[in-house]
Amino acid sequence: MPIAIETQFAFELPSPTDALLQFEAARIPEQTILETDTQVTPSEHVARVPAQENIGERLLVRAEGALEVSYSARVDIARAVSDLARHGAIPPHEIPGEAVEYLFDSRYCPADDFQSFAEAEFGGTSGGARIAAISDWIADHFSYVPGSSTTETGAVDSFVARQGICRDYAHVLIALARASAIPARYVACYAPGVDPPDFHAVAEVFLADPAKSAGGVWQLVDATRMACPSETVKIGVGRDAADVSFLTTFGPSTFRSSCVRVTKE
Amino acid sequence: MPIAIETQFAFELPSPTDALLQFEAARIPEQTILETDTQVTPSEHVARVPAQENIGERLLVRAEGALEVSYSARVDIARAVSDLARHGAIPPHEIPGEAVEYLFDSRYCPADDFQSFAEAEFGGTSGGARIAAISDWIADHFSYVPGSSTTETGAVDSFVARQGICRDYAHVLIALARASAIPARYVACYAPGVDPPDFHAVAEVFLADPAKSAGGVWQLVDATRMACPSETVKIGVGRDAADVSFLTTFGPSTFRSSCVRVTKE
Amino acid sequence: MPIAIETQFAFELPSPTDALLQFEAARIPEQTILETDTQVTPSEHVARVPAQENIGERLLVRAEGALEVSYSARVDIARAVSDLARHGAIPPHEIPGEAVEYLFDSRYCPADDFQSFAEAEFGGTSGGARIAAISDWIADHFSYVPGSSTTETGAVDSFVARQGICRDYAHVLIALARASAIPARYVACYAPGVDPPDFHAVAEVFLADPAKSAGGVWQLVDATRMACPSETVKIGVGRDAADVSFLTTFGPSTFRSSCVRVTKE
Amino acid sequence: MPIAIETQFAFELPSPTDALLQFEAARIPEQTILETDTQVTPSEHVARVPAQENIGERLLVRAEGALEVSYSARVDIARAVSDLARHGAIPPHEIPGEAVEYLFDSRYCPADDFQSFAEAEFGGTSGGARIAAISDWIADHFSYVPGSSTTETGAVDSFVARQGICRDYAHVLIALARASAIPARYVACYAPGVDPPDFHAVAEVFLADPAKSAGGVWQLVDATRMACPSETVKIGVGRDAADVSFLTTFGPSTFRSSCVRVTKE
Repeated sequence: MPIAIETQFAFELPSPTDALLQFEAARIPEQTILETDTQVTPSEHVARVPAQENIGERLLVRAEGALEVSYSARVDIARAVSDLARHGAIPPHEIPGEAVEYLFDSRYCPADDFQSFAEAEFGGTSGGARIAAISDWIADHFSYVPGSSTTETGAVDSFVARQGICRDYAHVLIALARASAIPARYVACYAPGVDPPDFHAVAEVFLADPAKSAGGVWQLVDATRMACPSETVKIGVGRDAADVSFLTTFGPSTFRSSCVRVTKE
Repeated sequence: MPIAIETQFAFELPSPTDALLQFEAARIPEQTILETDTQVTPSEHVARVPAQENIGERLLVRAEGALEVSYSARVDIARAVSDLARHGAIPPHEIPGEAVEYLFDSRYCPADDFQSFAEAEFGGTSGGARIAAISDWIADHFSYVPGSSTTETGAVDSFVARQGICRDYAHVLIALARASAIPARYVACYAPGVDPPDFHAVAEVFLADPAKSAGGVWQLVDATRMACPSETVKIGVGRDAADVSFLTTFGPSTFRSSCVRVTKE
Repeated sequence: MPIAIETQFAFELPSPTDALLQFEAARIPEQTILETDTQVTPSEHVARVPAQENIGERLLVRAEGALEVSYSARVDIARAVSDLARHGAIPPHEIPGEAVEYLFDSRYCPADDFQSFAEAEFGGTSGGARIAAISDWIADHFSYVPGSSTTETGAVDSFVARQGICRDYAHVLIALARASAIPARYVACYAPGVDPPDFHAVAEVFLADPAKSAGGVWQLVDATRMACPSETVKIGVGRDAADVSFLTTFGPSTFRSSCVRVTKE
Repeated sequence: MPIAIETQFAFELPSPTDALLQFEAARIPEQTILETDTQVTPSEHVARVPAQENIGERLLVRAEGALEVSYSARVDIARAVSDLARHGAIPPHEIPGEAVEYLFDSRYCPADDFQSFAEAEFGGTSGGARIAAISDWIADHFSYVPGSSTTETGAVDSFVARQGICRDYAHVLIALARASAIPARYVACYAPGVDPPDFHAVAEVFLADPAKSAGGVWQLVDATRMACPSETVKIGVGRDAADVSFLTTFGPSTFRSSCVRVTKE
């Protein structure tokens, strides 16, 4: 049952400006790109580079004036999804080198600030059970309010406001996971069921693999409860939203519009 | 002319706690470890994992009570050092994928906030010339004041206070470099000449390689002016100090003491 | 030569909400209200209370739905204006009790953070000469950019961005004055020459009175250079913009529009 | 049953510096100063000015080198104390002018950020009942941890950390009260039962007076539960700790020691 994606967005660069774009479904083993079509307003320069962790690609663009992006794809997902509670914690001293960096504080997720709260509120749990408790706590205490946050909003602000959008839910979950010594990263994605329809974001946490005696696996978690892991199309990953914005510009820009449509076929 | 390093530090963990340590000279082509000796108080668990970008290693420790680390090494440095002004900028659309992440905002370096200042103050320069101008501006406007900052201090705070220690100088330089679309990262290091003697930190920026027609090289920059690139022993790199602290603990800890001695033989 | 003011603004309260409004020219000795007319959409409750320092009045309103305010006035100004440089500093131990609170950190003006910068940059000056130097420094280093700041923006953010609107210029000047041990407050006002026309804000600093051997006087300073003290109609004063917003609501609200016209007759 | 206070504190000013001190029991109707003795190291200048709201006095000092303060007093308290739940809310449009400023955001209490949380968590309550609910919530969710906060710590930080000292408890309560449209201020005080013994701080909220048909009264609330209103000796009040620190210096200073002893006779 493939997922169909159609998205358009437009922005304006008043002078020649460099921009990074990341909006296409990543070609990774757990999801197969059946069809894909990307149209970008012709620009002075366009290059493609592998994105973080080799998940997806970024478009590096230098352009001026109106820029429009139109993208469509059909994606088949074959992702192993299992109950969070079945995943134990990986003791920090067994965490592989490449996952360690996802324990650290990042721009929007200053996890250190949350250590005492995480211990007080979720101290009796560990691993996947703790992530499930954190996700439930967020779902119970937060309201999804489009327009209530900005690109300056971080996990601390959202924790205080108890409201936000997908990005904010993911930041709070990531901060609380890292404060619990569980590696956590940010996943830009597409998913049906996101309401109102938009680019989506969820968290991914690194937990013990119940099928193996050692090593770990990344597991998707959506504290907004809008996206099922089995229907989530990954675009890219990063420390937090600073790393996987669909649009980053190195100079002034004006965002014009965006439209995202994701459906199960 | 090797660099000799001797360092001890001690801290206390009131209950069994996971900690990350990163304090050894990295084994990388540009520096040869002639001798090395690491002594750590025996702990419940100790593991070694490669650190970020495969530069150096982290010790993952689980321990309780007093922990002492004693480290000595002799290191020979063979690093290509050239005048910053000889390095042009790499247009963002030509930046290789693995350097792109060093353009993004991180915990202590919210570069986006500095875009308008960077353009206003350094707008006429680019590449290595801009980095030299930024480094000069920091050196001219900042005072090196041990004790004036904490682990919560970020580039914005330091920019306002106009004072700090090596870590703060590096954060401001990194933020201003990224705000100029130049990839920049944080380098924990040892260097003779650091006064008062301590762990040191500098920035590293990604610029065009004057010896080649394409691609780039990382160049060390120390806005404190205390460390020469040719005498700087790298421990590790990261987005900012959040990634390469010599000590990160996942729970309460008390820092007892540290002593660092770095000499040219 | 009276100043004529015409202003309208409209906002919407989705549910019954308390709001504070402060937008009328203050009746104080230094300015005479020749004519005045205030129209507010009839509301559940409206009360008037004296505003801070008895300068101006606030309207306390409880209302729901669309609210429109229409205000016009003609004001004659008779304010003693003198060259800042003629005003010496009042030693802090001679500052009268009622001015002391304007030395303290406030929501948008955390002056303490600016002490080292203020001393490094303006250390050779004091009193009115220092205020003039601060005002010149801001005028030289900042750009007036409507839309570049929000209600969350404080003096630290503006100092880093080096841009903002009148409110931001005033906040930075106030923070730097207080960091110099000079009492400083925020003045909401109307002034001709504000471009684009809008509600305006300037700072007011407490300095020695050159005409007297003791005591001090409040002096207006506009680092944006758009308003002359002799043509500035005061609405109210406070620690910073948190105290004298023309509209503060205790619940969600949507701002619809505003229009301000100020002319010299 | 008088309260006996003995306090000493010492600090050092490396160069001639202005400082504000506020540490004496206020002479106000609700508390009678039976005996008092203040000793301060002779300084270049010392002046006394009335403190905020005419509650207590500040010492304005200009001094250099070591400064020691020694203070003792016996105070009789005759404060009307009543159950919070008996106090209704004063509708914002009936709040008297002099209390309105305690609705606004201040340095450490950015109340606006807490509006959505306050409404979600305490939405069913109002007036004294809401304050009691807020105080209970803080007491239930926070840990009193000496050393866990600094002078930079504000209500947002404390709300995230869920720990702090008296100052932090007061800031969170004040922020949540203001977010509920209830005027709230910070009270520096002495109280027996504070553990470890130290300067203390509580909040004061403005509620309807159950004994009268109109007007309001300020009521003390201590979310740490360590001080009874009937045994609390007020030093001074302000928007938050920025206004009533026992020591504020306008330049570098080193705090040496403090010792506070408060007993019921």
